[in-house]
Amino acid sequence: MSGFVSFVSSGPGDPELLTLKAADRLAKADVVLFDDLSAGADPGAMPARGAELIAVGKRAGRPSPKQDHVSRLLVDHALTGQRVVRLKSGDSGLFGRLEEELDALTGAGIGYEIIPGVPSACAAAAASGLPLTRRLTARRVQFVTGADVTGDLPEGLNWAALADKGATTVVFMGKRTFPKLAADLIAHGLAPDTPALLAEAVGHPGQSVTRSTVTDLAASLAAERSDKPALILYGPLYAPEA
Amino acid sequence: MSGFVSFVSSGPGDPELLTLKAADRLAKADVVLFDDLSAGADPGAMPARGAELIAVGKRAGRPSPKQDHVSRLLVDHALTGQRVVRLKSGDSGLFGRLEEELDALTGAGIGYEIIPGVPSACAAAAASGLPLTRRLTARRVQFVTGADVTGDLPEGLNWAALADKGATTVVFMGKRTFPKLAADLIAHGLAPDTPALLAEAVGHPGQSVTRSTVTDLAASLAAERSDKPALILYGPLYAPEA
Repeated sequence: MSGFVSFVSSGPGDPELLTLKAADRLAKADVVLFDDLSAGADPGAMPARGAELIAVGKRAGRPSPKQDHVSRLLVDHALTGQRVVRLKSGDSGLFGRLEEELDALTGAGIGYEIIPGVPSACAAAAASGLPLTRRLTARRVQFVTGADVTGDLPEGLNWAALADKGATTVVFMGKRTFPKLAADLIAHGLAPDTPALLAEAVGHPGQSVTRSTVTDLAASLAAERSDKPALILYGPLYAPEA
Repeated sequence: MSGFVSFVSSGPGDPELLTLKAADRLAKADVVLFDDLSAGADPGAMPARGAELIAVGKRAGRPSPKQDHVSRLLVDHALTGQRVVRLKSGDSGLFGRLEEELDALTGAGIGYEIIPGVPSACAAAAASGLPLTRRLTARRVQFVTGADVTGDLPEGLNWAALADKGATTVVFMGKRTFPKLAADLIAHGLAPDTPALLAEAVGHPGQSVTRSTVTDLAASLAAERSDKPALILYGPLYAPEA
């Protein structure tokens, strides 16, 4: 009974944005380990009805002292021989802290597969009718996190990369730190009126998308704080094409 | 008869990596416009069997004088009142030149939706068992194209961004230009032994993934040229976690 774990990327939350492969693995699962609903996908809304559903309590943007505990649970369930699904929102390879769980499985000699999914960033752009790249004006796209494990803006950010007017940037978990980030970006040369987009609850029923500028979005986020999960996009999002 | 166009992201090519929504739109389509098979997804292998399938002849990495023609076809088909699917490989918002087709539809007063998909980059990383981000060593991930419309390395690349040892970089359509790119990266401070990965035909039956270093991969690509579509990843791909 060596067990097997499928890391299943759920996409942004909308069950219709599951891949066929993800739906298949959920349908066959004995047990599904998932993160807090506030931060991720709801397996109860997905084709996993026969499985035991276990919330493992990780939340984006908060300290996660429980990572060891998650890895332990994953190993323990797999060792019983169950078909285990580890559900991760968006694409599991993007800010999913996948490596820590992979290391635990490798250490325990348990096999796994990784099923890629639709990143929330791609879903946010699609819902807004905006491509992430543009042939002449946005030939680079970058994804960064706006919060380290303590919830603050990470140290050692690459300002030449982040303040580049020729790139589209997507900030994950960055709503609380965006006022500080925006000030630093402008200090490093980004135009204050650079287009910005706040995408909240992407792929969930309360989804909303608000067009703004870097300066205006920073001001509104400084004034009003909410816990709704969000992505922030900035760059030449609506730049005219030559 | 104003028509409607669904931009459907197919994912990397494996029909199992279609989203449920993409599969639904393909199943209901009257006509599917798709790019050359060498560069994209094969609608004949997808649930689009009742639809007329039209290859529109765009190829990654080659000049595309026909973009106007693609937009024209899209508008003409939509205006007949057909359910039109415009199939794009990977995620349509990433290097899919989506904006030109959106502009044409907007200009013609035709409605559309954009269905996001699994980027080839995420599928390549998943197939390799490697997350694109790592909590301490790869907190930024960036996607760039290795070829402009002429097939050469684009002008005006941001070297501070691309030679950053703390980021994972995915190069789309960059196999031919990688020897030049690698030399420039190293000249701008990237370590020659930075881990690199060549992922060919991701999501297709001939998929292969080769681990290497930036220097060694550049040498092998300079020596042997093939037209197989490929992604190149480099950065702290296998860096140990602290």
